[in-house]
Amino acid sequence: MNTKEKLRALRQAMQQANIDAYLVPSTDPHMSEYVAPRWQGRSWLSGFTGSAGTLIVTHNWAGLWTDSRYFIQAERELEDSGIELMKLRVAHTPEYKNWLIDNLKPGQSLGYAGNCLSISAARDIDGKMAKNGIHTDATQDLLEDVWPDRPKSPQNPIYPQPDQYVDRSATEKIDQLRVWMEKKGLDYYLVGALDHQAWLLNVRGSDIDYNPLVVAYLGVPLKGNLEWFVGPGRLPAQWANALDLNAYPYKAAAGRLIELQSQGIQIGLDPSTTNLAIYEAAGGPAARELSSPVPGWKSIKNAEATAHIRNAMARDGLALLRLRRWLDTEAAKGKSEYEVVRQLTAYRSALPNYIGDSFGAIVGWKGNGAIVHYDPPQSASASIDGRGMLLVDSGGQYLDGTTDITRTFCLGEPTETEKRHFTLVLQGMIDLTLARFPAGTSGVQLDTLARQHLWRESLNFGHGTGHGVGYFLNVHEGPASISSNPRAKSGQHPLQAGMIFSNEPGYYLEGQYGIRCENLVQVVATSPGWLAFDTLTIFPFERKLIALDMLSHQQLQWLNDYHQQVWEAMKGLVEGDERSWLEAACQPVHTKTEQLI
Amino acid sequence: MNTKEKLRALRQAMQQANIDAYLVPSTDPHMSEYVAPRWQGRSWLSGFTGSAGTLIVTHNWAGLWTDSRYFIQAERELEDSGIELMKLRVAHTPEYKNWLIDNLKPGQSLGYAGNCLSISAARDIDGKMAKNGIHTDATQDLLEDVWPDRPKSPQNPIYPQPDQYVDRSATEKIDQLRVWMEKKGLDYYLVGALDHQAWLLNVRGSDIDYNPLVVAYLGVPLKGNLEWFVGPGRLPAQWANALDLNAYPYKAAAGRLIELQSQGIQIGLDPSTTNLAIYEAAGGPAARELSSPVPGWKSIKNAEATAHIRNAMARDGLALLRLRRWLDTEAAKGKSEYEVVRQLTAYRSALPNYIGDSFGAIVGWKGNGAIVHYDPPQSASASIDGRGMLLVDSGGQYLDGTTDITRTFCLGEPTETEKRHFTLVLQGMIDLTLARFPAGTSGVQLDTLARQHLWRESLNFGHGTGHGVGYFLNVHEGPASISSNPRAKSGQHPLQAGMIFSNEPGYYLEGQYGIRCENLVQVVATSPGWLAFDTLTIFPFERKLIALDMLSHQQLQWLNDYHQQVWEAMKGLVEGDERSWLEAACQPVHTKTEQLI
Repeated sequence: MNTKEKLRALRQAMQQANIDAYLVPSTDPHMSEYVAPRWQGRSWLSGFTGSAGTLIVTHNWAGLWTDSRYFIQAERELEDSGIELMKLRVAHTPEYKNWLIDNLKPGQSLGYAGNCLSISAARDIDGKMAKNGIHTDATQDLLEDVWPDRPKSPQNPIYPQPDQYVDRSATEKIDQLRVWMEKKGLDYYLVGALDHQAWLLNVRGSDIDYNPLVVAYLGVPLKGNLEWFVGPGRLPAQWANALDLNAYPYKAAAGRLIELQSQGIQIGLDPSTTNLAIYEAAGGPAARELSSPVPGWKSIKNAEATAHIRNAMARDGLALLRLRRWLDTEAAKGKSEYEVVRQLTAYRSALPNYIGDSFGAIVGWKGNGAIVHYDPPQSASASIDGRGMLLVDSGGQYLDGTTDITRTFCLGEPTETEKRHFTLVLQGMIDLTLARFPAGTSGVQLDTLARQHLWRESLNFGHGTGHGVGYFLNVHEGPASISSNPRAKSGQHPLQAGMIFSNEPGYYLEGQYGIRCENLVQVVATSPGWLAFDTLTIFPFERKLIALDMLSHQQLQWLNDYHQQVWEAMKGLVEGDERSWLEAACQPVHTKTEQLI
Repeated sequence: MNTKEKLRALRQAMQQANIDAYLVPSTDPHMSEYVAPRWQGRSWLSGFTGSAGTLIVTHNWAGLWTDSRYFIQAERELEDSGIELMKLRVAHTPEYKNWLIDNLKPGQSLGYAGNCLSISAARDIDGKMAKNGIHTDATQDLLEDVWPDRPKSPQNPIYPQPDQYVDRSATEKIDQLRVWMEKKGLDYYLVGALDHQAWLLNVRGSDIDYNPLVVAYLGVPLKGNLEWFVGPGRLPAQWANALDLNAYPYKAAAGRLIELQSQGIQIGLDPSTTNLAIYEAAGGPAARELSSPVPGWKSIKNAEATAHIRNAMARDGLALLRLRRWLDTEAAKGKSEYEVVRQLTAYRSALPNYIGDSFGAIVGWKGNGAIVHYDPPQSASASIDGRGMLLVDSGGQYLDGTTDITRTFCLGEPTETEKRHFTLVLQGMIDLTLARFPAGTSGVQLDTLARQHLWRESLNFGHGTGHGVGYFLNVHEGPASISSNPRAKSGQHPLQAGMIFSNEPGYYLEGQYGIRCENLVQVVATSPGWLAFDTLTIFPFERKLIALDMLSHQQLQWLNDYHQQVWEAMKGLVEGDERSWLEAACQPVHTKTEQLI
């Protein structure tokens, strides 16, 4: 089937279902950032394969909303499809809602699959449509009818987190959840988000790219066995017994909720990570909507987890070291950005405990580095040739930790302007690292520390400064972030000891180069009521890009201390040429004034 | 009548009105910060004269909630009154609501005067009570029944802003409001907040302490004459004609709204500055609740206003100069804090264009300086004697501007610790002053710049960094602030060119001393899309308190530039000894390293 045939089939299904417009979002029933093939329906229908996009189909029109990083790709992939590219003015915003309001008439209807929108998102759409007299029908998973070979929900291997890497026992975590449930008066809590389930049960899987997760629903009764809707035969009986857990088919979750609520069982669920279909099954308004406490607990990494993460970080530094040396010797012979991505994955995959990459690496040569979230295409990505700046943002999933690191390299000699821009970014990263702050402080209050040096030169960057990072879990996790948006809930969330964040200011000169310096940092308590950051990421910064005389004494001292820390953490892992390279890269630096003394 | 007799009378009135608990708040029908005597009912009933407090009276109990700055005063004033002092854990929070929920039974009723709570506040109380089965009755202004000589609403002189100080004509402002009303589909807009009315009409008055305002309501019809409910005979006919304005009795506002809404006129009002009684008169749900655009417009001071404000600031510096010199010669002979306040008011009142103080001056000697918002009592305030730190926070209302300045002085020689603490505060004030930031940045993002030096030493201060300041209007105004609370709406509001803020970090060492450095700064555009601050306040900082070697080169340069600016602005206003004093106070400072060169 080509796109036109697919759209024709969809429109026939819409006709039968009495629907005037059909909405195909990009998420799955668990509100995941990355989704299994079964829920890549927007991509199957439209031919647009980017990670973010929303498709709207009416009987005489179809349009796909995506953001600027995908405009070129979307134009190519949507050519001759009959689908119009709708360019988002602001990334990740539901601008399609206004289109629907403007283009549907009162009395017309919008259909969508209620299992692929969160309760909150569905409520927002339904409300906006109702205000304009437009009906909504959330019961229409029309892809079921028109997608002949639609993949089933994934059934990849499941494995327990190895004992030595477990932070706290699953029993302890479930008990903590049950104490909370009892306080809230809940008989049963339905966990929809996949990383919440993986964290609670200390299990991992590979149902989804980049995130080591299992596609399932977890039902937690106040007493009695856990109910995991994960599919039959995926879980060894012995292990299920140890967890006091009964496994059920994935599709049985909704039926079980209907049964429970008909018995008057008080079901609780989280409105931002539970889909509308599950909400309806749980009794709709009869269910209790309560923000899950799991993100808060999960975000705080204890001493055991932190010790493992530190090991993973040092090993991960080896992959960067090998890539950096390879760039000087091999890549300069004309390798493409895509080949750099593959080489980096190869270096990581040779390391102990490697499970996969934590996201698709961003490798941007010269002007491509200025495209935030640039994803080098397999064919025709830029060739590394001659002198220039190279931005490399990548990470790995290891049994003992999740990494996310950005280094900006320079092949050949940097210009004075490149050095100045790089140093302004580095100064921001250092100043945020050096922050000390009272308990209760939130990310939006700290974000400015990473921007102030750029701001003084009327420069800035257009993304947040930091996101939460999981422990061998999602590389993006809540509930807190270091955001510049005063209205973002995550930016308002207090930072707590044990949380891990990326610290990644940048600067992007369109068409020229992109700069980003990213370390992962952990919030630590320094004295009662006071917090600071400890750096976890282990890899030196590109020395030739640092304009030393721009650094304050304190910044310079931090840099030298950090490089000493890198050397101590990695020296046991390297020998021969690699050891010499690392030793040189970690030597202390001095300003001109200091050198004179 | 003593307090017990007053409470007895109130309880009789409660009995007749079938009310179990009665709420007496601290505000007036216009949600003012300072209120005229007519609305000081909480003070009249309870005997507690502090500026902030909430009284709850039941048939067998009475309690007054206030915050820590008033605990000693309230204990004294409430002695033998039968009213229990309820100490607020967090200032300015409605902790009494939980008391009501815990102590009233379902079916009981809470009464209050609907004209002294905003729509938003009343809705919040009503909602919380309703959830617990408690009835509310907003129609009970019981003070009318029990307060024999209750003052009438004020009738003090009204005057137009002198032509030469007007920023924009009233006609232009009203037209701007009408354009907005037309866009929003309103036929009539009711302006309740007193400073909104004063700004729109370019009038001032003296109905309220510290704020140069007129107690009135302003009705703006889309077409036709303005309707000012201000009382008869207060306004010369000629001037009313020039404004196309009809004056009506103050009490006629509600009746007029009832009349208008019965005619189907669409009335708009602002839920945070309009009282519940007016809302009901305007038709309740039939009225349109729309945040007023006036605070946003009013907050942006144009070039004309700014030029006048700069003159007022330089003159205001003279009062500080005279006080500082008087402190060295006279106060050291044992004057009390209260006498310092009076002396400062005397210096200000001798200056041209002086109308009054912009708030009650805070003068805190030694440990009293550590009590934020300390209000020196007339009797028994501390005597300035010997060596010590003195915090002076004060301001004036002039026809050409409103000032608010804090300087921390040291009589005698400071200790090294005092110098270090003072300099940490000054560094924060300077770094915030030096901030450059992109358009759209809000106060919560900048607040940290004023705290970071203190934070690095695990020190902090417990108040916001900056509030908006009016142009010969309220010294506290919205809509934006420089707040450390990520959830405060004002802290999330983008800073815009023309807005004026206080920049006032502090440090308070309990029982020892308080330090605050406060300048007023104005947001200015430096290049397209970029903003910065210009300092308006004119008075040097106490040189002997500055630990010069703690300052960065940039901070030192700012300080010297600022003192040069002070000298240029004030030198034409001083002669003789005062001129010599100022010249010395404004000399450039140098670090030890610089002095060696």
